[in-house]
Amino acid sequence: MKRWSLLIFLLLYFRAAIAEDGYRLWLRYDKIVNSKLLYTYLNQVNTIYFPAGTPVLDAARQELLSGLEGLLDKKINTDNNASASSLLIFTKAHAPLNLPALALKYEDLGKEGFYINSTKRSIIITANTDTGILYGVFHFLRLLQTGQSLEHLDITSVPRIQHRILNHWDNLNRSVERGYAGISIWNWHTLPEYIDQRYIDYARANASIGINGTVLTNVNANALVLTKDYLLKVKALADVFRPYGIKVYLTARFSAPIEIGKLSTADPLNDTVKAWWNAKAKEIYQLIPDFGGFLVKANSEGQPGPQSYQRTHADGANMLADAVAPYGGIVMWRAFVYSNASPEDRFKQAYNEFKPLDGQFRANVLLQVKNGPIDFQPREPVSPLFGAMPKTPLMMEFQITQEYLGQSTQLVYEAPLFKEVLETDTYQGGKGATVARVIDGDLHHYPQTGIAGVANIGNDRNWTGHPFGQANWYAFGRLAWNYELSAAQIADEWIKQTFSCDTMLVATTQKIMLSSYEAMVNYMTPLGLHHIMGTGHHYGPAPWITNAGRPDWNPVYYHRADTVGLGFDRTASGSNALAQYAPGMQQRFMDVHTTPEAFLLWFHHVPWNFKMKSGRTLWEELCYRYNSGVAAAKVMQQQWNTLERRVDKERFKQVQMLLAIQVKEASWWRNACLLYFQTFSKMPIPRQYEQPDHTLEYYKGLHFPYAPGNG
Amino acid sequence: MKRWSLLIFLLLYFRAAIAEDGYRLWLRYDKIVNSKLLYTYLNQVNTIYFPAGTPVLDAARQELLSGLEGLLDKKINTDNNASASSLLIFTKAHAPLNLPALALKYEDLGKEGFYINSTKRSIIITANTDTGILYGVFHFLRLLQTGQSLEHLDITSVPRIQHRILNHWDNLNRSVERGYAGISIWNWHTLPEYIDQRYIDYARANASIGINGTVLTNVNANALVLTKDYLLKVKALADVFRPYGIKVYLTARFSAPIEIGKLSTADPLNDTVKAWWNAKAKEIYQLIPDFGGFLVKANSEGQPGPQSYQRTHADGANMLADAVAPYGGIVMWRAFVYSNASPEDRFKQAYNEFKPLDGQFRANVLLQVKNGPIDFQPREPVSPLFGAMPKTPLMMEFQITQEYLGQSTQLVYEAPLFKEVLETDTYQGGKGATVARVIDGDLHHYPQTGIAGVANIGNDRNWTGHPFGQANWYAFGRLAWNYELSAAQIADEWIKQTFSCDTMLVATTQKIMLSSYEAMVNYMTPLGLHHIMGTGHHYGPAPWITNAGRPDWNPVYYHRADTVGLGFDRTASGSNALAQYAPGMQQRFMDVHTTPEAFLLWFHHVPWNFKMKSGRTLWEELCYRYNSGVAAAKVMQQQWNTLERRVDKERFKQVQMLLAIQVKEASWWRNACLLYFQTFSKMPIPRQYEQPDHTLEYYKGLHFPYAPGNG
Repeated sequence: MKRWSLLIFLLLYFRAAIAEDGYRLWLRYDKIVNSKLLYTYLNQVNTIYFPAGTPVLDAARQELLSGLEGLLDKKINTDNNASASSLLIFTKAHAPLNLPALALKYEDLGKEGFYINSTKRSIIITANTDTGILYGVFHFLRLLQTGQSLEHLDITSVPRIQHRILNHWDNLNRSVERGYAGISIWNWHTLPEYIDQRYIDYARANASIGINGTVLTNVNANALVLTKDYLLKVKALADVFRPYGIKVYLTARFSAPIEIGKLSTADPLNDTVKAWWNAKAKEIYQLIPDFGGFLVKANSEGQPGPQSYQRTHADGANMLADAVAPYGGIVMWRAFVYSNASPEDRFKQAYNEFKPLDGQFRANVLLQVKNGPIDFQPREPVSPLFGAMPKTPLMMEFQITQEYLGQSTQLVYEAPLFKEVLETDTYQGGKGATVARVIDGDLHHYPQTGIAGVANIGNDRNWTGHPFGQANWYAFGRLAWNYELSAAQIADEWIKQTFSCDTMLVATTQKIMLSSYEAMVNYMTPLGLHHIMGTGHHYGPAPWITNAGRPDWNPVYYHRADTVGLGFDRTASGSNALAQYAPGMQQRFMDVHTTPEAFLLWFHHVPWNFKMKSGRTLWEELCYRYNSGVAAAKVMQQQWNTLERRVDKERFKQVQMLLAIQVKEASWWRNACLLYFQTFSKMPIPRQYEQPDHTLEYYKGLHFPYAPGNG
Repeated sequence: MKRWSLLIFLLLYFRAAIAEDGYRLWLRYDKIVNSKLLYTYLNQVNTIYFPAGTPVLDAARQELLSGLEGLLDKKINTDNNASASSLLIFTKAHAPLNLPALALKYEDLGKEGFYINSTKRSIIITANTDTGILYGVFHFLRLLQTGQSLEHLDITSVPRIQHRILNHWDNLNRSVERGYAGISIWNWHTLPEYIDQRYIDYARANASIGINGTVLTNVNANALVLTKDYLLKVKALADVFRPYGIKVYLTARFSAPIEIGKLSTADPLNDTVKAWWNAKAKEIYQLIPDFGGFLVKANSEGQPGPQSYQRTHADGANMLADAVAPYGGIVMWRAFVYSNASPEDRFKQAYNEFKPLDGQFRANVLLQVKNGPIDFQPREPVSPLFGAMPKTPLMMEFQITQEYLGQSTQLVYEAPLFKEVLETDTYQGGKGATVARVIDGDLHHYPQTGIAGVANIGNDRNWTGHPFGQANWYAFGRLAWNYELSAAQIADEWIKQTFSCDTMLVATTQKIMLSSYEAMVNYMTPLGLHHIMGTGHHYGPAPWITNAGRPDWNPVYYHRADTVGLGFDRTASGSNALAQYAPGMQQRFMDVHTTPEAFLLWFHHVPWNFKMKSGRTLWEELCYRYNSGVAAAKVMQQQWNTLERRVDKERFKQVQMLLAIQVKEASWWRNACLLYFQTFSKMPIPRQYEQPDHTLEYYKGLHFPYAPGNG
């Protein structure tokens, strides 16, 4: 008895000694607390048959064994004899003999899918490929981490989208544009010789959620990464990532032939330029045979591009596509362009530019489109390009890093945003043409499909700064694999893996997460307001700004507040951006009385006295929304406080401090925006609401010269 | 039996689960492996009498209890009854009654010293102050961590130097000038609300080695840190550090009255300027009553200063000193100045500037002098200022961050450098006037004494980038407390706390550390070469540079290689910098034949055929030294490889990769420098040595546009 109490003490002590600094992300593999469940699992996972010997299988096997050793608190034996094992893992080509027939068609699994089946006798994980096995193993570990039964498993899981990619806006000097979690995890200076353990753990984390590609460098690109010294560094990373099914991509600076190739032009139709890119592609593929390809931001916000030579985006993309095509590479060409010269509503510019080019791109080009027409605002209607380019594979570009969503100081769970976008019906060719069906190729039978997320990862101890930033990385990967998962389901999984399976903890944390997105929209940009944040760093409210570098960088360009009302008329009486949508979508937004209120001010200039569905006037509704956003943030804070004994001390305290900042920032947004808009509405803030604690001048006077993320 | 084996397994498992990512520094407190020793300690430390209740005592108590719980693997009880306890900790004012008389005079302990005494009956830690107790507790924990006997302890330990300070060259945007370990650990954006666990652990680490002050901001200063918003952030850090005996200091930008005060001048004799600084000091002290004071870099490398107003450095320093004097603050004025306009040997400029001002500074001003006359070169003779200003307290400024010492990719243990400087005899007023005796006030009875180290700390997981960078932070603190400790002794302590007490591990690692400094000097700048590194980033060799921004930024200014020979004549026939030293020192360096060869090229232009003590010519000796440096680096690598089973996997691999880089960089230095100097000597590299594997042009062509640390 004394011995057991010592044992328990030691266990507790050593557990306590593992500081929860967040580094392990959702791959924590701590011993399962529920002893009944643990006992069941131990009986079910006894001996493992898992022939390996390839880099990917070795990685999967090592993950499985170390994961099980942690979760089950026991070293699990492996056996070369399949019939003596209770957990069998094999690819189609290496299926053990004498296996009972499996109820699957391997052809359904494709190159990355897996199948998990359990009978009374054994559990089987199988796939066509090593990578499929890798994903199956991570899925299996997740079942245990989230406390699910291993009985009667019959799981067929195949990714809906082919290229599931993180975009790092990381510069070669390690600063990260729109990064709020320290600096870049790529330490270019010590590569290729020094392999940081982070590189390996980064690959593991991504593989566990199905991410299979990473663009290492910023879309505001630096040609230097294409020089030999840097390519050797890129190769070192590619070598680390390969066993985890992850391909590396680079951003290609369009003027690289001039900058590092010493040519006098970067004209995509010039033969010397083409030859230069062909040779560069060859050089890259000699080092990295499975190099993924290029991501390009061209003729946008100062980046060079084909238009500098009176060529089209298609000319530019196709030249690069031809260079990588012999090796199976792709080009992801960003649609985020808007002209400095054009007075056209910025909302409309990407569509105007790219829609006419449909059909002109090579088969290995994907057009990467931000979810909304402007720029990752808290809530945007979907880009009118989705569904409008049946002959050009459109990739989704989401932003995981919270540039406009509270940066590193706010808990905002993004899965509801991602889901809202993916489930939006574009009405292209009729009802049911969701963005998801555009992206996954179902609607237009794209030859390639892809989805990208701008990463929120940095060298902070916990990778993402805010501990809940990890959930957004996680959710992006899970939805890229299967967008039919619900936001609640993903939150549930993530919480269990990241904190614990404690019922109350899971329920409360899930509530916090699921309410956070709408709360943030309400206290920042309710009713369809957009782009009213501070200039440059994009931190905090600044709807009053009128002097930014170009007209469409100014908040006033977007909210158009005047004595009459508020909002941007994008109907036929205004910029008519609405006309870029399919008729069904136009219908949805055309009439100020029937437009969903969440999008109202995106499409209409609405009088301050306009009667809302609630019976309130627009002004009253604005006050109501801003206040309900702040109130929701306070509820999140209260909910978290109930979890003190259910979360480890470190992370409890961290999140508690951050939620206090969030409530402060939410109030700041509300106060500054209401005081400013009040100068137009001339109406009082109803007395039932908290009144601003400072003057408008005070809020206008706040400056943040060193706010992070300016790149 | 089965239970015990499970216990052992679990222990091993949980131990293994603690990834050695280096975050814990030397405060690891893992269970003592030597079971006999553990048993002895358990008997000796049974019950603790430790009345606390003040912030400092509470911090000390918590550290002691958690430290012992880790080391002894047992929760140790505390008791309010002194006579029932085996470990008694108390300040003089709270000594328990009926205590046997102690063999100490409390007045010898001063404000920070402590006394540890053990008898058969009990162990006592006592001090005059709470801070003394804090240091005593850390010392006691170190005894256990390093496996020392607790019998017959009779330790009186008092710091030799009063202000023991880290200087952070950290900018408000979190970049760190000459930082090679990520970005600044000060996250200004989330302060004051968010208290990173790092701030607390930083304070613990510093307190454990006796550091009692920290300058948070870069000497190339930004006035913004003196505005109210930032002062609130500084206060939050001061509040975290206070329980650990650490004061905060800030760098004062001399032009702050203009930049943030809207004055038209920063003339130190102007009454409005004085009033502005007085008010600023008052504002700071209202927030931070124990604020340490200011560090100032003035009229140096573009920084503003009193000379812009035809005032002296004394005028400037005294104005600031008067502002902080009422609150007990100090001003640390840097002597690192050299004029752009003056053609005078840079070596001489600080002395020329400051020596005439001796006696003109206020009592609360310290002059902070870099160890050598140039700039933290691998080996410099000591600054001629040491010993030359009897009426002005001179502080030492060492550079812990390895700007010129291999940055983050090389293992260079700096204690031998620090010791060499401190033990150097300045011969001021005769023999025995060591730099240490200048610094600690013994020689000139300074009213204040201080020592500063430019920190090598960043937000990397392990704080310092290179795992052995931690040893330099540690060594600086230990020597600041007691410079009589040997480099070997400090290495021994650090290794035991950081890795383990394994005899072979300690012996081998100590060998590596103790050989590293001389190895680095040999493969970078042997025989007194200096300042021949790359421009700007200071990474790698570039003795050929002739086009830097000003003459004395060029390597050729320093090495003066020509067809005759090599080196800078600083005797009477040259710049006569030697004349700034006391006669004894001049004697040492005057004659080319008797000058210690380690400093030869600092003071003499030596013919290529000059006969060295070894019998080799200068050229041959240069080849020999460069090669022996590389050879020594290779030996370090081999020695480390023997430790594979004695060091945790993570750090073994890390250091292994870094040593491979070090050998590569050492060879690069050798090859580039010898090829370059060969263009003057016209002599072959003797055949017994490895020949360069590239041409000089190749080495000249290497560029590192994104080498870290450029600030």
